[in-house]
Amino acid sequence: MKTIIKNAKVITMNEARTIHEHGYVVIEDGVFTAIEHGEPAEEAAKGANVVNADKKWLMPGLINTHGHTGMSLFRGVSDDLPLSKWLAEHIWPLEQKLDQKAVEAARLLSMVEMIESGTTTFLEMYHLHLDDFAAAVEEAGMRATLMRSVIGLCSKEEQEEKLAESLGFARRWHKQANGRIQTMLAPHAPYTCPPDYIERIVEAARQEGLPVHMHLAETRKEIHDYMDEYGMHPVELLQERDLLSGTEWLFAHGVHMHEQHYELLGAHQAAVSHNPKSNLKLGSGIAQVASMQKHGIVVSLGTDSVASNNALDLFEEMRTAVLLQRGINEQADIVTTWEGLNMATSNGAKALRFANLGTIEVGQQADFIMLNPEQAHLHPSSQAVSHLVFAAKGSDVTDVYVQGAPLMKDKQLLTLDKERILKEANEQLRRLQQ
Amino acid sequence: MKTIIKNAKVITMNEARTIHEHGYVVIEDGVFTAIEHGEPAEEAAKGANVVNADKKWLMPGLINTHGHTGMSLFRGVSDDLPLSKWLAEHIWPLEQKLDQKAVEAARLLSMVEMIESGTTTFLEMYHLHLDDFAAAVEEAGMRATLMRSVIGLCSKEEQEEKLAESLGFARRWHKQANGRIQTMLAPHAPYTCPPDYIERIVEAARQEGLPVHMHLAETRKEIHDYMDEYGMHPVELLQERDLLSGTEWLFAHGVHMHEQHYELLGAHQAAVSHNPKSNLKLGSGIAQVASMQKHGIVVSLGTDSVASNNALDLFEEMRTAVLLQRGINEQADIVTTWEGLNMATSNGAKALRFANLGTIEVGQQADFIMLNPEQAHLHPSSQAVSHLVFAAKGSDVTDVYVQGAPLMKDKQLLTLDKERILKEANEQLRRLQQ
Repeated sequence: MKTIIKNAKVITMNEARTIHEHGYVVIEDGVFTAIEHGEPAEEAAKGANVVNADKKWLMPGLINTHGHTGMSLFRGVSDDLPLSKWLAEHIWPLEQKLDQKAVEAARLLSMVEMIESGTTTFLEMYHLHLDDFAAAVEEAGMRATLMRSVIGLCSKEEQEEKLAESLGFARRWHKQANGRIQTMLAPHAPYTCPPDYIERIVEAARQEGLPVHMHLAETRKEIHDYMDEYGMHPVELLQERDLLSGTEWLFAHGVHMHEQHYELLGAHQAAVSHNPKSNLKLGSGIAQVASMQKHGIVVSLGTDSVASNNALDLFEEMRTAVLLQRGINEQADIVTTWEGLNMATSNGAKALRFANLGTIEVGQQADFIMLNPEQAHLHPSSQAVSHLVFAAKGSDVTDVYVQGAPLMKDKQLLTLDKERILKEANEQLRRLQQ
Repeated sequence: MKTIIKNAKVITMNEARTIHEHGYVVIEDGVFTAIEHGEPAEEAAKGANVVNADKKWLMPGLINTHGHTGMSLFRGVSDDLPLSKWLAEHIWPLEQKLDQKAVEAARLLSMVEMIESGTTTFLEMYHLHLDDFAAAVEEAGMRATLMRSVIGLCSKEEQEEKLAESLGFARRWHKQANGRIQTMLAPHAPYTCPPDYIERIVEAARQEGLPVHMHLAETRKEIHDYMDEYGMHPVELLQERDLLSGTEWLFAHGVHMHEQHYELLGAHQAAVSHNPKSNLKLGSGIAQVASMQKHGIVVSLGTDSVASNNALDLFEEMRTAVLLQRGINEQADIVTTWEGLNMATSNGAKALRFANLGTIEVGQQADFIMLNPEQAHLHPSSQAVSHLVFAAKGSDVTDVYVQGAPLMKDKQLLTLDKERILKEANEQLRRLQQ
């Protein structure tokens, strides 16, 4: 099947930063086979499904590298509480009640929200009903990295049981759904997984050839307690046990770190999922993205769950990431506009270790979105990259394609029943709160 | 003329924080005459224009207390530069070329953007073509505080001329357009207006009964230079000359201030327009909103111009304001969700000294907006106030009313020709850049 999207402004995000003001892309078997300016030749268009983009902006799909969609029913359930109280008195009691139906409703809701706001790929780190979700992701047509996260504050037997579950899931789903689903192993965090258990998981990941995802240095208190217990920062402990090298790490947050910790991560080609809005909302703090970049860390963007964000809109995440670094460093040119857009696209693909993803180039997976530029907030319209970072909204997205297949066309979802899903989300939360 | 909006979720923002899950509002002569839950009685609806809100959320219109819409063609014109270079090499040369047509195009564009994202009232501080704009605001049906800002780095004669111009404009337009237009006097900033000139303007404002608007303590460098020149912080100088008392002040920014400066402003009932996104983007820093609140300052929200934002979406401004304070103070409950929404509504009205504005209550001006809650990012939908602050987008706004008159209905603008205005914005920028 050959698809041509023509009459688009194509923002390729390639290294040369090419933008075709008036161009087209050709997709065959889910992969870009041509990106050109001008109009496609009549010859080339023969037998192809030709879509007129009508001057929309076409760019890579956005990539969300940290989240827990299973929690999405908890959006706004309690907002003005310190983290410990929020978790202990509100989130955990509700989480205890989460059953298959509630988790499914939460995740379908999140997929609607993500597709509508231009996210084509996301990471899910959670412990409940992953197989069902993998099947749902496959059906919805999205791309995802899924993992069963484990908390190790339990007996050795339970630890092994959880790891076996994680591994089983990872083996069943890694590179499935035509390569759209990948997996990782995921110790929850240094403060919830004793060092021996993390070591055990990392070894398993190395054997299986899987990356490892873990929360890292999210709050000041967590680091303070960790130093009390282990006499060093968790990054130092990972280094001491030689767990950084030879492992494809993706850390979430990385807020409370010193320069030498960023340096260590950079030296080991670790990636970080920067979650600026969640870190702000929970009062966790602000990660030093400029330092991460300096040390060669691949900085990507995550929303975290909507319980602490409270949205899954990567345009906002991108904007917040860039703006924050300028504000806290009092320097207007410290993280560039281009770098912001890159974090949400190409760097996201790198962080999740998806090959051939994140740019509009020949040979790349055809995951892309289109936006309607006929909006006051995107005018004057000549500065597309600036507008995508500083002015665009998720709601500007009109079309979403993954592997060349449309998931949304002119704002109409094609693989998910939005009306039913919104209704079900309300009903499931009502049931949980009874 | 009597209008009833029924079948709405009414978020009144009154002191009791009343929300009618299913309610209606009655408007007569541009003023709310009833706000109730349930359905209006048949009797009451007789002869009225009854609008079915279809379960939309109805809330006060948003109020933007600092901006320069005359600069809106410069959105994204240069983003990755330090303030001084950005101004000197990009903005000022373009600003030199701004003529009546370009400024008009910029401002019409901004009115479209503001109405579409739920702003009903805004402040404009600029030096060009104010009378034309006042007429355009009146025609568009918006509410605004307009002022001719003055820079005093010139001869005494020129200073007097500029002040006379400002006063002339203020007298012509104060409380015009059925009270929808108010004016202020506006010395640009302490670093561009010598103390004597500020004193002269403040005296004129006191005589005329006009409030005064001024940029204050936006950048670290500006304060550093000021201290070098005058040996004290500008707030201290205003206090020393007794210019704080007896004057209705609205300051923009207030980033580089110490506790005692916030205390002084609070003691004199000053209002501040907090512009978090602009302050971040230009690398200016982060204002201490929590300190402002502690000292009783009325904190409202402003976008500043789109050249340094780059949008006029107060939902984002509100969200950024609340999130930032939590992040920099590492405290999740320091500025509450409610306070965030209040800054963008009721406090905005107080900052601009509009009487009877900013809440949905009997006797208040009927400036309100409606949002479509049938969106994934607003589900589960039970936590409306939380969602308005943390998840809503300007694009969720479907209906906008000022003084009971509709400016937008079901996303259709009624007083402005959007298509023509977007086209004109592009054309005018192209002309300026030639």
